[in-house]
Amino acid sequence: MSRRVKLGVLISGSGSNLQSIIDRSEDGTLAADIVCVISNNAGAFGLERAHRHNIPALHIDHRLFAGRSAYDTALVETLQQHGVELVILAGFMRIITPVLIEAFPMAIMNIHPAILPSFPGLHAQLQALDHGARISGCTVHFVDVGTDTGPIIVQAAVPVLDGDTEESLSARIQVEEHRIYPRAIQLYAEGRLSVEGRRVVITPSAPASAVSLENPAA
Amino acid sequence: MSRRVKLGVLISGSGSNLQSIIDRSEDGTLAADIVCVISNNAGAFGLERAHRHNIPALHIDHRLFAGRSAYDTALVETLQQHGVELVILAGFMRIITPVLIEAFPMAIMNIHPAILPSFPGLHAQLQALDHGARISGCTVHFVDVGTDTGPIIVQAAVPVLDGDTEESLSARIQVEEHRIYPRAIQLYAEGRLSVEGRRVVITPSAPASAVSLENPAA
Repeated sequence: MSRRVKLGVLISGSGSNLQSIIDRSEDGTLAADIVCVISNNAGAFGLERAHRHNIPALHIDHRLFAGRSAYDTALVETLQQHGVELVILAGFMRIITPVLIEAFPMAIMNIHPAILPSFPGLHAQLQALDHGARISGCTVHFVDVGTDTGPIIVQAAVPVLDGDTEESLSARIQVEEHRIYPRAIQLYAEGRLSVEGRRVVITPSAPASAVSLENPAA
Repeated sequence: MSRRVKLGVLISGSGSNLQSIIDRSEDGTLAADIVCVISNNAGAFGLERAHRHNIPALHIDHRLFAGRSAYDTALVETLQQHGVELVILAGFMRIITPVLIEAFPMAIMNIHPAILPSFPGLHAQLQALDHGARISGCTVHFVDVGTDTGPIIVQAAVPVLDGDTEESLSARIQVEEHRIYPRAIQLYAEGRLSVEGRRVVITPSAPASAVSLENPAA
């Protein structure tokens, strides 16, 4: 049985992944509640999304802190005050420090718009296009001290099509992001994730699938 | 319209990809003929596969040459004597040199058991397992001077399942290898591949697909 996990979501911008998590939380398919949304950027539309759903929406301005660690200390305090159990990075455009990571061991998730370890870092979709990749996608992973290096929870693959732009590929990947991020959180809520070394083991609940994806399609 | 392209296949071992190309050539779905199979290793079972299908099978022992370039010079001479137009690396466990690459510009293909640029080099399937990847697959690419860095032609993705061994994952990927390598060669035979920078552009023949793959499955 799932219990409802308390989520703190960190954003910097539009928060479309935040919206997908709000929607799944409200429709009952995700056993989690967002107890606070924090943005480093006052103008982030994600704060407005939180307001609309009566979720506490906080602006913590990184410019008011002496450094990254001081900022993360404030984040940790705020997250803990709200009883956050799992931290969700959803387009949070700040490098996070061990202060945050050590306060939430294997309890911080991020989503990255590539099939890691391919194309870590910024502009992953453009990296995939420039590389001539035929398949890209997205990855939900636990956060460690590296950039997009933490243990992988769920990945989804999409084709890269001739004629794709950064926008069209990003849109195709985003459809998958909005599906797999709530799924990864639900696996956490169900207590089905365990980390062995850098592998995440998922307690099975259903027969495994071996469907493949080929691109370009036959 | 396709004409039949003359292939030279380089192997070192079992040659299961060679077999898939032989089969597609013989059943008429691949507009290509293998005009010679060359192994650096006398005991390669792929030579036996070639014999069985009346394909010239040659052992060119790398140990008889002073260095990689000298060996590749011999390969080029043999390939050219047989009228080879497209060189197919199929489990050829030798580093190739500019001597071969420059003799067949954008006319050497390789298959790699990962979704490049993830997991280049040896033991790609084990690399994927150790990394905790949830999706891996295979890549057919043109060969350049780097290791598994050349322009990507076709990729296929498969799930990595909890409990997978190197053998089970390799077997799942190999099913895709046997499909996509003949397809990439057929695209070449149809004159549909052009290289722009490091992107391969494929002249369309059918509507594009945007099917996705998610792993673990929902």
